[in-house]
Amino acid sequence: MLVLLRKGVPETVAGDVAERLRMFGLAVHRTDHDGQVRLGAIGDAAQVDWDAVGAWDGVAELRRIPVPFKLVSRAFHPHDTIISVGRCAIGSGQLALMAGPCAIEGEEQAFRIAEAVASAGATIMRGGAYKPRTSPYSFQGLGEEGLKILRRAADAHGLAVVSEVMDSQQVPLVARYADILQVGARNMQNYSLLREVGHAEKPVLLKRGLASTIEEWLMSAEHIVSQGNSQVVLCERGIRTFETYTRNTLDLNAIPVVKELSHLPVIVDPSHGTGIRNKVAPMARAAIAAGADGLIIEVHHDPDHALSDGPQSLFPEQYAELVQQIRTIAKVLGRTL
Amino acid sequence: MLVLLRKGVPETVAGDVAERLRMFGLAVHRTDHDGQVRLGAIGDAAQVDWDAVGAWDGVAELRRIPVPFKLVSRAFHPHDTIISVGRCAIGSGQLALMAGPCAIEGEEQAFRIAEAVASAGATIMRGGAYKPRTSPYSFQGLGEEGLKILRRAADAHGLAVVSEVMDSQQVPLVARYADILQVGARNMQNYSLLREVGHAEKPVLLKRGLASTIEEWLMSAEHIVSQGNSQVVLCERGIRTFETYTRNTLDLNAIPVVKELSHLPVIVDPSHGTGIRNKVAPMARAAIAAGADGLIIEVHHDPDHALSDGPQSLFPEQYAELVQQIRTIAKVLGRTL
Amino acid sequence: MLVLLRKGVPETVAGDVAERLRMFGLAVHRTDHDGQVRLGAIGDAAQVDWDAVGAWDGVAELRRIPVPFKLVSRAFHPHDTIISVGRCAIGSGQLALMAGPCAIEGEEQAFRIAEAVASAGATIMRGGAYKPRTSPYSFQGLGEEGLKILRRAADAHGLAVVSEVMDSQQVPLVARYADILQVGARNMQNYSLLREVGHAEKPVLLKRGLASTIEEWLMSAEHIVSQGNSQVVLCERGIRTFETYTRNTLDLNAIPVVKELSHLPVIVDPSHGTGIRNKVAPMARAAIAAGADGLIIEVHHDPDHALSDGPQSLFPEQYAELVQQIRTIAKVLGRTL
Amino acid sequence: MLVLLRKGVPETVAGDVAERLRMFGLAVHRTDHDGQVRLGAIGDAAQVDWDAVGAWDGVAELRRIPVPFKLVSRAFHPHDTIISVGRCAIGSGQLALMAGPCAIEGEEQAFRIAEAVASAGATIMRGGAYKPRTSPYSFQGLGEEGLKILRRAADAHGLAVVSEVMDSQQVPLVARYADILQVGARNMQNYSLLREVGHAEKPVLLKRGLASTIEEWLMSAEHIVSQGNSQVVLCERGIRTFETYTRNTLDLNAIPVVKELSHLPVIVDPSHGTGIRNKVAPMARAAIAAGADGLIIEVHHDPDHALSDGPQSLFPEQYAELVQQIRTIAKVLGRTL
Repeated sequence: MLVLLRKGVPETVAGDVAERLRMFGLAVHRTDHDGQVRLGAIGDAAQVDWDAVGAWDGVAELRRIPVPFKLVSRAFHPHDTIISVGRCAIGSGQLALMAGPCAIEGEEQAFRIAEAVASAGATIMRGGAYKPRTSPYSFQGLGEEGLKILRRAADAHGLAVVSEVMDSQQVPLVARYADILQVGARNMQNYSLLREVGHAEKPVLLKRGLASTIEEWLMSAEHIVSQGNSQVVLCERGIRTFETYTRNTLDLNAIPVVKELSHLPVIVDPSHGTGIRNKVAPMARAAIAAGADGLIIEVHHDPDHALSDGPQSLFPEQYAELVQQIRTIAKVLGRTL
Repeated sequence: MLVLLRKGVPETVAGDVAERLRMFGLAVHRTDHDGQVRLGAIGDAAQVDWDAVGAWDGVAELRRIPVPFKLVSRAFHPHDTIISVGRCAIGSGQLALMAGPCAIEGEEQAFRIAEAVASAGATIMRGGAYKPRTSPYSFQGLGEEGLKILRRAADAHGLAVVSEVMDSQQVPLVARYADILQVGARNMQNYSLLREVGHAEKPVLLKRGLASTIEEWLMSAEHIVSQGNSQVVLCERGIRTFETYTRNTLDLNAIPVVKELSHLPVIVDPSHGTGIRNKVAPMARAAIAAGADGLIIEVHHDPDHALSDGPQSLFPEQYAELVQQIRTIAKVLGRTL
Repeated sequence: MLVLLRKGVPETVAGDVAERLRMFGLAVHRTDHDGQVRLGAIGDAAQVDWDAVGAWDGVAELRRIPVPFKLVSRAFHPHDTIISVGRCAIGSGQLALMAGPCAIEGEEQAFRIAEAVASAGATIMRGGAYKPRTSPYSFQGLGEEGLKILRRAADAHGLAVVSEVMDSQQVPLVARYADILQVGARNMQNYSLLREVGHAEKPVLLKRGLASTIEEWLMSAEHIVSQGNSQVVLCERGIRTFETYTRNTLDLNAIPVVKELSHLPVIVDPSHGTGIRNKVAPMARAAIAAGADGLIIEVHHDPDHALSDGPQSLFPEQYAELVQQIRTIAKVLGRTL
Repeated sequence: MLVLLRKGVPETVAGDVAERLRMFGLAVHRTDHDGQVRLGAIGDAAQVDWDAVGAWDGVAELRRIPVPFKLVSRAFHPHDTIISVGRCAIGSGQLALMAGPCAIEGEEQAFRIAEAVASAGATIMRGGAYKPRTSPYSFQGLGEEGLKILRRAADAHGLAVVSEVMDSQQVPLVARYADILQVGARNMQNYSLLREVGHAEKPVLLKRGLASTIEEWLMSAEHIVSQGNSQVVLCERGIRTFETYTRNTLDLNAIPVVKELSHLPVIVDPSHGTGIRNKVAPMARAAIAAGADGLIIEVHHDPDHALSDGPQSLFPEQYAELVQQIRTIAKVLGRTL
């Protein structure tokens, strides 16, 4: 239930209402909008006498939230959530440009790519240190050593860092080096991991699962937010369909749908969404035109020798050119880089 | 096999080579590119002595076409096919804007919408007279009467006409009124219909089937072109996936893929691709940003009372606003309206 | 609306009720069940005064049919439809065994396979004379000559005949030779074809489309039945999914679902449903165990040289062995061959 | 590479070959078949001089394993793996019957269902103590208390126990109570969890992911086996498709495919595979007819009040009846209960 308080109620009254709701065993989440305190009261609503609550001092209105995802819905929180990371305010009028190699392979590779993407206009560097690989015999990432290199390379070029965390136990370690904790598509419904990043003090980049509906994706975001971490960035990266020419089918329909249903920012990963280098730029442009809040793109200076995902990585100069095209399309939607 | 002739061979030599290939029982399709005659020789290639052919007078080079779709491939015909319909050159730098109601419902409706879409910038009017409907008890279209109304409404506002043909027997009738014959998604592999429109003297708009791969779609285009009609416009309109929030999943990945594999123009139908009015504009913008050659969009002045597809039809003023946004995005790709 | 008459009403009263319903512009379909006349009245129900109809002489009860497919639903017609073809009663306790080559290739092939499948226990011979092929350059079938051969081969071994009709214009021709008209998966929503076979006096085998839901499949059956032909046999043949190891994903869930929703018989095609010879027998057994009313299976004495679908055709001796296994499983469900 | 030793080589020679392969940095897995030692040598094969290895004392033959999943392939291990759990030998001629509630809800529920499924013929009891739920606000399971109840209920009726482990950290805890560790569909590519159960000394039930191909499923099994735990039972539980009538699409094609590709046992979960109570029995029969090694089925004495998955749970008497039907079908395939 959404409990809207009267505009201008003193903080003590607001605190009082929250406290009394908690005494019913409900979890209470607060958000402020247009000078009005909104309390999301979640739990076994059936046992509460809502008529009585409606009459409490300071309560203006009660509203049911008509979707299963409560805290991430626009009904609970009408305005866009903005998440500040480094120089970037994700979800604002400024697009979030994340770029970097699929996996951190070594010092030289990381620094070289960091320099390239920073000079092209990216503000956040991506790079995997723990890689989920279909085969147990493929390169699994450099681990903590990779995180250290990634951090140094990003710092050297004024970039923030996003990196994947594969397991609930890894959260503290990855959080030590990364500014954003990435939950990968395969782990979108790993609820132990979602709970753990829900307790972290870092923003979370939540990729959509290969076979996950938009509703399930938002429910996974709800898992995180309900633990207290409201800094979630959604990332569309392609779903699995019968089409085999491309690695995945990038579902850009999801962008306007998510923007309507939720206040969370949503970005697009055209690298995994296509799996083919020369299809990345067209789909990156399309993502921005559809209203995405940013892009995460794989860039590598020597993709033929990349230890993973070479065929879908852009060359640095292709990335720089793409950023220029994005700039103009962004203006049509009233946005900047 | 692709037989490339020497540049500047006399027409008589070119005709001679084609004739000799036909004597092997092969079908021969000719295209000219960069001052060079290219002959696609299709049939049982195994029984031909290609070494001997390579030595014929006028023959410069032989190349296998490494894809199952031959005549629609870039290998056969490297430059973009441009199809002129009314004031529009589909596949050129000028985007093709098709718009109109799902179904023609009557004189007043058709004229009113024709006026609106023409003044917004569309050059081709869509409207169904024969409607494929899941239920035998739904409105099936006005038939020939609908075609007459559509033609008059379009003519009154300087628009060309695209309308669906559902059956091989209907081709002559629809061709009498329409400038472009539309083959619907459900009929993409109705080979009798493909053969028949392959003999028509009108361009064909071939929608992608709900569960068709890009390769199957191009093979269906090949069915048409192999009958002699090379004027085929492809149309991506969403595929069927597990996602149920939107009516279909618009596969914009298909746009850059088709542009690479084929010389045929490809447009996008964001109305069926989303099924939701306020998602049509974002996906129309995305389609153009991805490189589509045009858009086909459902517009209705009174969608609440439309006899079909009301919930996905734009209001005329929404369509006009969308065309303005498209104009700027088109420029980024070096295109105009 | 379903209008149930009182048990034992005279025929004149029944005829009278039907006539009065038709005067409202409704289509009236009659079925008898348990000594009771049931009239399905279909059309614009909103303009009928149903309270008045409920008071008519002879009318016992009115019931809404709560599904979009009316005439093919169990609500309209509670008992199983049985369709007699040759020695087989499809939909009865006796399983329908259809078998034969993918395509009729010639006299010798057809007679040889007819003999083999007849002696193994099949009662209906399959064989295509008109083949829907993805490529315009593949073998398209022998046409009418193929139908003649198929008829002779089947007659020589006491078999009935099922063969595909690809186009509304072909219906009279195919109906001259075949006992069952097959509508292929690609044509499941070719409504012109459905209407035409709805007027034929032969049973129809309606294959499920590659991307068709069960509801859409039943709606296509409704198209046929609403034209007056109630002899429709449904055929599950696999749907398209992301799995590529098998040609299609055989959806056996559909068998118990269809048996609950509809009174029409439903059989299974494990040849197309798997696309792999040694997977046909396990899935044929599974289909019968799931409650299917029969099987249609591709059999070829020389599959390596078959002109289509060789890799999924059983050898005659494999088919004979399979029929023996089916016999025992059928007994568990109270059925016979 | 698969290194086959000469039949009858002394153990010291076999150990010597293994040791020398390890010195190249390869992981060596041994299996014995038909009196012959087979060594799977996995790692960077490119740097090994295989001609030299072929000439080593005791080496009979070298064979490449032509699939990405090595240790779980039939090429490595030709005969069926049999896994003994309680009174059941999974993968043998005896079918494995696992049954029980979706979630353990309390003492009375667990004992009552344990008694029912044991008397019907089940040998392994299922029951979740940690439940992966789409919503953070749904019942999440009783945790360790649930495991204790499940163990006592199973012990009281001579049943073994299978229960889900959701996170790598939970493995030791669940392994204390359960005989089989279940990895759920959502965690099929949670590689941290796979690694951890790969080190456990208990068999693992690996469910297929909703959008996972058969190859990816076998690769996840390879993750487990490559860690040293070769006791993996695969479980098909339905994949996600466009069909919405059933909860999932049960892919029984996967049964004969897996039996050919791998030596691991494979069972079927028709409860999740259909999501509808009266479709469970037909699909359970079909699974056995297709060659599955067993079934895992949800049974509840009071499904209307079950805390999860009530609509797909069988009543105990339905389960008992199903087991009787299975008995006869099993015989057709030369199997017993």
